[in-house]
Amino acid sequence: MHADPEVVVLRLGHRPGRDNRMTTHVGLTARALGADRVIISGAASGSKGTIEDITDRFGGPFDAELTEEPRGVIRGFEGTVVHLTMYGLPIQAVESEVRSDHEEGSLLVVVGAEKVPFDVYERADYNVGVTNQPHSEVAGLAVFLDRLFEGRELEREWDDATHRVIPKAIGKQVEPT
Amino acid sequence: MHADPEVVVLRLGHRPGRDNRMTTHVGLTARALGADRVIISGAASGSKGTIEDITDRFGGPFDAELTEEPRGVIRGFEGTVVHLTMYGLPIQAVESEVRSDHEEGSLLVVVGAEKVPFDVYERADYNVGVTNQPHSEVAGLAVFLDRLFEGRELEREWDDATHRVIPKAIGKQVEPT
Repeated sequence: MHADPEVVVLRLGHRPGRDNRMTTHVGLTARALGADRVIISGAASGSKGTIEDITDRFGGPFDAELTEEPRGVIRGFEGTVVHLTMYGLPIQAVESEVRSDHEEGSLLVVVGAEKVPFDVYERADYNVGVTNQPHSEVAGLAVFLDRLFEGRELEREWDDATHRVIPKAIGKQVEPT
Repeated sequence: MHADPEVVVLRLGHRPGRDNRMTTHVGLTARALGADRVIISGAASGSKGTIEDITDRFGGPFDAELTEEPRGVIRGFEGTVVHLTMYGLPIQAVESEVRSDHEEGSLLVVVGAEKVPFDVYERADYNVGVTNQPHSEVAGLAVFLDRLFEGRELEREWDDATHRVIPKAIGKQVEPT
C-alpha cells in the first residue's frame, strides 16, 4: 500500500478463456486488499480492462500490466519473492519473517494457475502455503495480503474514485464522490 | 470446525457453465479454511463432485450439498446468518460480535454470485463487507473464515485422507497416509 514498499502480484499461467474470471478475481483481490500492481502473464487484455475499469470507478492508485516474460519479471525483481503454493511452508510459520522483509523492501507475490514451473519454486525466497490443502489462488492471495498488512489494508483510502460505497447494515448505497 | 458449532457456507446464484470454477473455489475454500459444509444453490453437480473428490483424497469431514430452495435454507437456518457483500458493514467492525455469536451457535455464511435478492439482505443478521470494494466472493470468504477462526483453521487435522502434503521450503512432497 501507498506509503509502504511496493507489493506486486504476478499472475502466472493465465489460459485465455478458461482462466478469465479467476485472473480478474486475482487482480481485483490484489487491488482491494492493498497490493500496488498486478502483472498478468499471457493474453489477458479482458481481465486487465475489467481491473482498470474498477480502478477508474472506485479509485487507486493501482496498476494492471501484461507480460510475455514472467520469468524475466521474477528474475529481475529487486526485492523479496513469495510464491503461494499448497506445497510450501505454512503461512503462520513464515509470515512474520516475510513482514520484516517487506519493511525493508518490495515484495513480489507469485500466484499460479495450474502447473507452476519448478524454477519458480527455486527462485522464490519463500514458498508459502495458506494451508497445505488444495483450494483457490484467490483465497490464498486474500489471506496472505490480510496477514501481511495485519488488517491495515481494510482502512485504506482511495484516490480519484468517481464512486464509493457507504457501508450499510441493510441494503446498498453507492454515492458519487 | 469440528468441535465448534457448525459453520455452513451457502453459495447463491450459481450459473451453470459460467460459474463452475468460481463455485468450486468457493466450496474448496470453505473446506480448507474450516467450514463444515457447503450448500450450492443450482445445478452444480460438477462442482459438488470436484469438492467431494478433494475431500476423499485430502480428508474431511466436509460435506457438499445442492439445493433448489436457497431461500428455504436461509429461512430455516437455526443460528446466525452472515451475508458477505461489498455493501455491508466493515468486517473489522463486526467480527468480534459475529465470533461471539458463533460461540453460542451455528453460522450460515451466504456468498452470492452476481445479484443477490434484497430479502437476503433483510434476513441476514449481519451484512458484512471484506472491504467495500468490488473483488471476489472467494477472497471475501477466505478472509472472513480466517478472521472468524482467528487462524485456528490453519492447524486443523484431517480425517480419512488418502494423501497429505508435507510442507517444504522448495518443491512438492505428497505422501500416502
